[in-house]
Order: sequence, then C-alpha cells, then structure tokens
Amino acid sequence: MKNMAKLGVLRIGHRPKRDKRITTHVGLVSRTFGADQFILAGNDIKVINTLNKVNSKWGNENFKAELTKSPKKFVSEWKKKGGKVVHLTMYGINLPDFKFNNIRKEDTLIIVGAEKVEPWYYENADYNVAIANQPHSEVSALAIFLDRYFKGKELYKEYDSKLKIIPMKSGKKVVEK
Amino acid sequence: MKNMAKLGVLRIGHRPKRDKRITTHVGLVSRTFGADQFILAGNDIKVINTLNKVNSKWGNENFKAELTKSPKKFVSEWKKKGGKVVHLTMYGINLPDFKFNNIRKEDTLIIVGAEKVEPWYYENADYNVAIANQPHSEVSALAIFLDRYFKGKELYKEYDSKLKIIPMKSGKKVVEK
Repeated sequence: MKNMAKLGVLRIGHRPKRDKRITTHVGLVSRTFGADQFILAGNDIKVINTLNKVNSKWGNENFKAELTKSPKKFVSEWKKKGGKVVHLTMYGINLPDFKFNNIRKEDTLIIVGAEKVEPWYYENADYNVAIANQPHSEVSALAIFLDRYFKGKELYKEYDSKLKIIPMKSGKKVVEK
Repeated sequence: MKNMAKLGVLRIGHRPKRDKRITTHVGLVSRTFGADQFILAGNDIKVINTLNKVNSKWGNENFKAELTKSPKKFVSEWKKKGGKVVHLTMYGINLPDFKFNNIRKEDTLIIVGAEKVEPWYYENADYNVAIANQPHSEVSALAIFLDRYFKGKELYKEYDSKLKIIPMKSGKKVVEK
C-alpha cells in the first residue's frame, strides 16, 4: 500500500495524566492504519517514545511521531503548503456524506481532539467530519476514517519488521528476525 | 438497522484505575456501533453507570450494559445456548480472511481483552480474529469488526433520543427534545 499523498494525524487537547493511554492508542492507530505522521500537541515525550518503540519492533519506516508546541501554527502551515485539513468531530457532516475524492490527491492532516475543541479548529478545517453523530471514541473515529481512506487495504499490510505475527486459529505465534 | 441476531461484547482483563477510560470507550463503541449488550468482567460499576447515562441521553433502547463476576461461565453459557464466540486478538486470523457469514445468523459474543488474555479464551472462542496483525487498540479493533458486521450501516442509525446532533459543515448544533 502506497499513499498517494502524505497523511498526518494531529492530536490536540491531550492532558498527560488523563489521556495518556487514549492518546497512545490514537498514535498506534495512526501508525497501523497507514498514516505517515503522528503529531502530538504539547510536550508529553513519553507518548512519542512509546510509539517509536512500537514502531521499531513492528516496522514501518515511513512513520514518524513527533511533538508540536504550536498546533494552530502547524495547521496553518499545512494549509499554506496546499494541504487539506479534516477535523474529526461528532458534530460534523456524517462520514457517508463525505467525499474522500476531495482529499485523495492532496496531503491531508486529520485533527483528532479530546473533550473540548476550540472553535478555531472547526473554522479552519476544510472539512468537519463525524464518524456517526453519536458519542464513541477518538480512537475508533480515526480507525474508521483511515479504513475508509485506504478502502480496507491497511489490514493486509506487511512490514519488514523485527517481530512478525503468524496468524493462527488459536494461540499465539510471533517470529523474531 | 435491525440485528439479525443478538450481539454482545464482553470486556475482560479490565483494571479499574488504568483502564477506566479505554474500557468506557470500548463500551461506547459497542453501543454506537450496534451491539445489543456490553458485559464488563469485574465490579467497576462506574463504567456501567457512565454508559447508561450516555445511553439515556443519546438513545438506544435495545442497549444494555452490565457486570459479570464470572466471565468464563458467561462464555460457556453463551455457547451452551447455541451462540458463537469471537475473540478479537492481534494473534488471530486476519479480518479479511474471516467469513462473517459464519456468525450472521447466530447470537454472537465478541470478547475484547486488555493486555494479557488467558489461553482459555483462545481455546474456547469459536474464532480468534485479528484486526490487522499489528498492535493498535481494542477500541479500534472492535469498531472495525462491528463496522464490517453491519456493512457500514451503523453510521446512519437514528434514535428517538433526548439529544440529537444536526450534522454541520462547521460548528456544533445539538437539539434537545
């Protein structure tokens, strides 16, 4: 699977104590479901270290995890370079009404918030998209969005990684290179 | 959307302090993505209360959240009544190779674990299924599994609820009944 264009995920509103695991899961979904870049607003380097550790074991050379101190500036610069911005929110237009062809050929930044998101993000996103207009989770919202973007192909990906799972009907089998 | 058969989600391995938010998100995904029942192994009633509160605001009469003290007994009884059991694990057969027709006509229990899962569950599940053989999150794994089960129709569901979101290109609009 090769991206047609660059795909980034920006996580905003992260509260280090409360959101540590949820944000880590958002990062892992970004990686496993095919994003090229995960950007965390704030200074919680622990989350980034965890993601880099997983990435070095399970393999995805293209994937980068990093921090930003200025998420709004990051968004503005992404747009200045001609990229598109999609904000995932349960208040947006529902996913089945979103046309993925609007973003397939452009570098796209997906913004994933926590509980409260400033109006600035709604206004500056090119698209506010809801994965069902009902509450669930930023982890599942991102997974479904990326799954639709890649049309399910992300589930077949294979990497040249240190660890590799051999799928089994029952039990666990991991091979190490 | 009407289920052809009953669909339950059993969350095992929950550690109240560490997993509170992740497990709540697993419960919310169960609800919003169309499961009829969420069963939490253990005695963390707070998670159940949160789910019931969300459910009464956002509407889904069919959905029930409850605790079980004996998850293995729960699984065994589900099977005795003729139901199928699917365990989601990154070590299982990969999702694209799983045939949903195996479970569509049967009551199905989906088991979602935390970090360590006892071999008993691998052995007693009818199917061990991986949502990609790579690490991500039980929240995203469940969402993708339910999305495939319902063929995306769960994203269109409408409830007769107290609160309802009016999808918007930008901003938030919630109407209260």
